[in-house]
Amino acid sequence: MKFSQLYKETLLNDIIPFWEKHSIDTEHGGYFTCLDIHGAVYDTDKFIWLQGRQAWTFSMLYNTVEKNDKWLEIAKNGVDFLRQYGINKDGDFYFSVTADGQPLVKAYNIFSDCFAAMAFSQYALASGDEEVKALAIKTYYNILKRRDNPKGDFEKNTNTRPLIGFSLPMILSNLVLELEEILEPDEVENTIDYSIQQVMDVFLDEKSGLIYENVLPNGAHHDSFNGRLLNPGHGIEAMWFMIDIGDRRNDSGLINKAVTTILNILDYAWDKEYGGIYYFMDAQGKPTQQLESDQKLWWVHLETLVALAKAYEQTNSKEVLEWYHKVHDYAWSHFSDPENGEWFGYLNRKGEVLLDLKGGKWKGCFHVPRAMYQCWRAFETIESKAHTISE
Amino acid sequence: MKFSQLYKETLLNDIIPFWEKHSIDTEHGGYFTCLDIHGAVYDTDKFIWLQGRQAWTFSMLYNTVEKNDKWLEIAKNGVDFLRQYGINKDGDFYFSVTADGQPLVKAYNIFSDCFAAMAFSQYALASGDEEVKALAIKTYYNILKRRDNPKGDFEKNTNTRPLIGFSLPMILSNLVLELEEILEPDEVENTIDYSIQQVMDVFLDEKSGLIYENVLPNGAHHDSFNGRLLNPGHGIEAMWFMIDIGDRRNDSGLINKAVTTILNILDYAWDKEYGGIYYFMDAQGKPTQQLESDQKLWWVHLETLVALAKAYEQTNSKEVLEWYHKVHDYAWSHFSDPENGEWFGYLNRKGEVLLDLKGGKWKGCFHVPRAMYQCWRAFETIESKAHTISE
Repeated sequence: MKFSQLYKETLLNDIIPFWEKHSIDTEHGGYFTCLDIHGAVYDTDKFIWLQGRQAWTFSMLYNTVEKNDKWLEIAKNGVDFLRQYGINKDGDFYFSVTADGQPLVKAYNIFSDCFAAMAFSQYALASGDEEVKALAIKTYYNILKRRDNPKGDFEKNTNTRPLIGFSLPMILSNLVLELEEILEPDEVENTIDYSIQQVMDVFLDEKSGLIYENVLPNGAHHDSFNGRLLNPGHGIEAMWFMIDIGDRRNDSGLINKAVTTILNILDYAWDKEYGGIYYFMDAQGKPTQQLESDQKLWWVHLETLVALAKAYEQTNSKEVLEWYHKVHDYAWSHFSDPENGEWFGYLNRKGEVLLDLKGGKWKGCFHVPRAMYQCWRAFETIESKAHTISE
Repeated sequence: MKFSQLYKETLLNDIIPFWEKHSIDTEHGGYFTCLDIHGAVYDTDKFIWLQGRQAWTFSMLYNTVEKNDKWLEIAKNGVDFLRQYGINKDGDFYFSVTADGQPLVKAYNIFSDCFAAMAFSQYALASGDEEVKALAIKTYYNILKRRDNPKGDFEKNTNTRPLIGFSLPMILSNLVLELEEILEPDEVENTIDYSIQQVMDVFLDEKSGLIYENVLPNGAHHDSFNGRLLNPGHGIEAMWFMIDIGDRRNDSGLINKAVTTILNILDYAWDKEYGGIYYFMDAQGKPTQQLESDQKLWWVHLETLVALAKAYEQTNSKEVLEWYHKVHDYAWSHFSDPENGEWFGYLNRKGEVLLDLKGGKWKGCFHVPRAMYQCWRAFETIESKAHTISE
């Protein structure tokens, strides 16, 4: 089977049907994301960023794959829930709410807002709903306003050690492309410029070729737990955002630097003993604070497949293709669960299933379908150029 | 070798020398706790509750084992650092500071305050320092003042689901005995009454015989991630605090209920496949949010050894002794590191060393020496009653 076909068929015949069948809350709206190995709901709390992510996924599929009314309806189900129950009086998004929308955990996490903005934007494109479009724009600017202090009053760190985090600049580089059609062109270009500068000049370390998760504002490293922290999946995911930007801007320099960085990170973070990519690492090999560091997570491997597929599409590099096959073989043989549908999320270091859930507090309808879609499209292009890539 | 001798010799010839040699910051005061497998300092940040715990440990040894001036000096080193750098303008204790005492992480965690109060109290007894004694009392009342909202402005949960946590009532039941000699007798008895009521009536579930980590204020369970959470080590640790209270009050009913609860929890939380006690569990067997749930942690096993030793001292029960041997064999063969000194802290489910640190953000000079001391004393009593317990 061609790779494009594998990814397309898995997306449309396994992953999406799984979420269509198991996750829709027809009583209160929104989605259940805590689904066990078979898809049964084991907890009904609603995590706002997963609501946004699933609404985005179905809107995106409607916009790019097929004008399927069922998909639009599922997207609307999440968008309506988010609008009604997701937003606090300041316009910030809660972290979680009960099944019927009562706020549970306050708005300490700006990524809820980021995924809400992405959902609103894709849904506005799909539906033509002007109110949702306005809400997408409003949410975007609210994110920018909170950019320098995203946790607000919940920030526990003092200013003694002014480390800045990679997550927000990384997400902005994807968010701004997602909102491209509804923002002013100048705003888009400015935010792209800002993101490239932050990701490639501040967080990417020239010497090691690795992305650090936290740095001083000038990009210097700090010898402390947070300052030594590497999150290989984050770094690799950001590189495919950079490839997308490079493709959009015809910037082959940016693309090549991103591809080199993907390979650097993979070389550093691949578990030579058991296979798979580590979740967290310490740049000096010291013990991490995260007890889950050596676990193998679904999203890390899927984002890597997307990054490598895009890198290969752009460069036709043999080294990239070899890495692609290595990660593909590991991911499909360890995370995929064809018997019960969808993918496992959490393996121990040795690749054994650690938690057999298909969704939870952090795993929802997002990384798996997005990666399936992105890899399908990348391999479609690759295969159309007559390279013979198949399983 | 008799158990009393094993614990005493390990405490005095391995554990305490390890911390004496590697952890003292002679430049800025206080203690380094991030120590690698050999004891080398790999990070210099100072976590306030570990400062308190180590100052407590050396004060306690001075008060109970030997009037060793070196121990008093080491205790003073931590107490002085805590007084000078640990306290913010409201009298609350920071979570962490730099090596030279600049605040890093704000006072969101009341357990910093609890261990500071314990350190001040033991040190005041050891040194006769009236200022430190006054500070212990002041800190104790500040903890009580914050009891109903310990995280203050950092609390992310709304009031939608008013779960209360087990940690604070549990710690209070130990803290109040620690401060017994410096508090008014009425205050001590009232807080003991409150602790027993909270631990044994509210958090202990009659039906399952297990301690829940979070319950509704009337003790009812809530079907949610936090409401289903079990922390077996916490439950077992609290039971030896209850045995101490029962012993002090000649309350055999309380002691027997605590012993039964220890056995219930052990039976539920022992890993029948690989041995050891799970870190976290879900009361309904659903997936936990904690990715580290199946790991085996040093403190869980040491607190269990203390609980079983005290339970055996009180009851002479064969079942307790059998459990004691089982946990003893697992703990000493997996966590102990006679080659390099001290104990490992973190094993994977299969009992392999996951992080080979001897100290870090959460592991300091506390659970290992306290358990060694408590088991030594318990077995001294047991052996003096002519039971023949030995390795």
